[in-house]
Amino acid sequence: MSILVMKFGGTSVATLDRIRRAAKRVGREVANGHDVIVIVSAMAGETNKLVGFVEETSPLYDAREYDAVVSSGENVTAGLMALTLQEMEIPARSWQGWQVPLITTSAHAAARIEEIPTANILKKFGEGMKVAVIAGFQGISPEGRITTLGRGGSDTSAVAFAAAFEAVRCDIYTDVDGVYTTDPRITSKARKLDRIAFEEMLELASLGAKVLQTRSVELAMRYNVKLRVLSSFEEMSDDAGTLVCAEEDIVESNVVAGVAFSRDEAKMTLQGVADRPGIAAAIFGPLAEAGVNVDMIVQNISDGGTTDMTFSCPINEVKRAEKAMADAKAAGAIDFAGLVADTNVCKVSIVGIGMRSHAGVAAKMFQTLRDEGINIKVITTSEIKVSVLIDRKYLELAVQALHDAFGLDRAA
Amino acid sequence: MSILVMKFGGTSVATLDRIRRAAKRVGREVANGHDVIVIVSAMAGETNKLVGFVEETSPLYDAREYDAVVSSGENVTAGLMALTLQEMEIPARSWQGWQVPLITTSAHAAARIEEIPTANILKKFGEGMKVAVIAGFQGISPEGRITTLGRGGSDTSAVAFAAAFEAVRCDIYTDVDGVYTTDPRITSKARKLDRIAFEEMLELASLGAKVLQTRSVELAMRYNVKLRVLSSFEEMSDDAGTLVCAEEDIVESNVVAGVAFSRDEAKMTLQGVADRPGIAAAIFGPLAEAGVNVDMIVQNISDGGTTDMTFSCPINEVKRAEKAMADAKAAGAIDFAGLVADTNVCKVSIVGIGMRSHAGVAAKMFQTLRDEGINIKVITTSEIKVSVLIDRKYLELAVQALHDAFGLDRAA
Repeated sequence: MSILVMKFGGTSVATLDRIRRAAKRVGREVANGHDVIVIVSAMAGETNKLVGFVEETSPLYDAREYDAVVSSGENVTAGLMALTLQEMEIPARSWQGWQVPLITTSAHAAARIEEIPTANILKKFGEGMKVAVIAGFQGISPEGRITTLGRGGSDTSAVAFAAAFEAVRCDIYTDVDGVYTTDPRITSKARKLDRIAFEEMLELASLGAKVLQTRSVELAMRYNVKLRVLSSFEEMSDDAGTLVCAEEDIVESNVVAGVAFSRDEAKMTLQGVADRPGIAAAIFGPLAEAGVNVDMIVQNISDGGTTDMTFSCPINEVKRAEKAMADAKAAGAIDFAGLVADTNVCKVSIVGIGMRSHAGVAAKMFQTLRDEGINIKVITTSEIKVSVLIDRKYLELAVQALHDAFGLDRAA
Repeated sequence: MSILVMKFGGTSVATLDRIRRAAKRVGREVANGHDVIVIVSAMAGETNKLVGFVEETSPLYDAREYDAVVSSGENVTAGLMALTLQEMEIPARSWQGWQVPLITTSAHAAARIEEIPTANILKKFGEGMKVAVIAGFQGISPEGRITTLGRGGSDTSAVAFAAAFEAVRCDIYTDVDGVYTTDPRITSKARKLDRIAFEEMLELASLGAKVLQTRSVELAMRYNVKLRVLSSFEEMSDDAGTLVCAEEDIVESNVVAGVAFSRDEAKMTLQGVADRPGIAAAIFGPLAEAGVNVDMIVQNISDGGTTDMTFSCPINEVKRAEKAMADAKAAGAIDFAGLVADTNVCKVSIVGIGMRSHAGVAAKMFQTLRDEGINIKVITTSEIKVSVLIDRKYLELAVQALHDAFGLDRAA
């Protein structure tokens, strides 16, 4: 018995007709001999509507009630998918998160999966059931309350089921046909990747490529779940989409796999900060407490006992960051001359596991940007990524130039 | 500690604003010193939408999946009501049917309540919670699947909670302000009743007065739950609405409490049926198996070994009844000369516990109809009810004449 996990996102189950199309894909995999676990999202727009209801009702909502409300869209699609499969004479039934039970932590609205018992569903497969349809995104806390896994959490549900059931693969059906070297709206030379390593996908996901929830990629990497991203709107074929897999399953690859970017960045500079041991903690502690997601950090060379500290954060957290710094200054925890926010920046990154074994990748990136006359404001690097903060007006130019420079329009 | 059950129907929770208005009523009862159990329906229209999805997906649907889908609307309103109460600083939380757990039979889509454990919710009341919000209409089967109680089932949820928690009263908030002597759209003389006996309400409910689900009234009668029907769109007062209660709590009442009617009736006559022992069973067995809800039955006097058998059923079951009879004839189970369906009829009934002790009520009804020139086609009676089938064109005239004849525009 080989188990395949198939996940259908909101646009893939947006109407009864689309649910039927998705069910046909499931039917073909059943005909291929698989027992299938289908994970469904809510119909497109449904979860947003429910979140809107909650936020309008109670701006500082009780996350337990939020979860009870926003998880209900998945119950609808799970039942409808099971019914559609039954109409096709495929033995199927639905499970809601608490029925599996998909046990999570009690961190409501952002719960983490603790355990997925398999016995119950395996027993049904043994009795002739061909498809288990699971309401994605939702679980149950040790206290017996409904939890959700955060927006995009159905991806994580799917990978967790694939890991628990040792599935041959986890197919994520979405409205794009795979992972691209960069956003095709920025350059027509963007190319769909046949394969990408978990580490690369992780960097791309957290850098703003919205194909997969970041946590689902982490989980797939940890349990070595073969993850395939493909479109529910195109014809099926065995090599469709992009396979997200372990590095060793990729024979040839470009040094750089993709160029990612994010427009929602702001650059904040604390000027004239007293340069003393512990100053970084004194600044970034209060920011973290205020819920500011600091990304890049640069400390300038100290000059006469004071320094400038620059960091980036999402643009919608600027106000919160300013308040946290003003409060810390008022409380005497830190001292600085001024705080300058630059909201006209963006982040552009190159990602690739090939960087580990190739020197000069960062240098080539900087050279390429210099040749285009683009000034770099902040740089950060990791083992497989180089990110720069630049003026937002250069975003398209930078992405196109880097895409060309690293030859991403051609396969390795 | 006195527990009050308050149930809000779909129109009473149709928008976030209406949920707030309902929550204010709950808040006033909390201020009055009650611990409150709130039962909510889905937002108006939501359950119909979900039922439509299921029927379009699978005309002969698996009722287990139907229940999983159509129960989800109540989860949304339960969470939103809890959040609204919390915003008003009233300690509240929501429970879905399976969380209580409200245990039912496995008769999906029409399940009956088996048990409502109270310990969990009572413990929360003991800890300071003021309102338990319950998703109505839904429960859980012994197999752990979601069940629903049939359309209008939230009324039954409410009464069952009131019985289990020995509530002081069960207030059903709806879009009408109480139970009337007849439909005010038929005669402006229709009068709201302050009190009505369970038995009378039961007859009125099953006769087409759509204020309460029939089963909820049965349950209230069995457990002597004081049931109040009142409008969520009018100002609160202690004597608002109609109290449905035991006969002994009604001091004075009219002989006839109300005039009910139903337009959705058809009269079917099987002509030339061989009159032999067991013929009734041979006819009504197949009809029951075909899901035809036979209401009134009249067997004409036998004439030369054959007889005419007349029965009434809902108008949308005529086709099914015709097929069942044709099949039974083809199978040789029964024989008859012809089957005539009259779909231009209606049923008018008078209901009142006073009939038990007053002779001549039926005679007065027949006299009144005769005086208006209305021909009676079929009659049935019970201890507290007389029903007649008449031509549909006389419906308004019959209701108005009976309302006048029994003095229903005046309180006893």
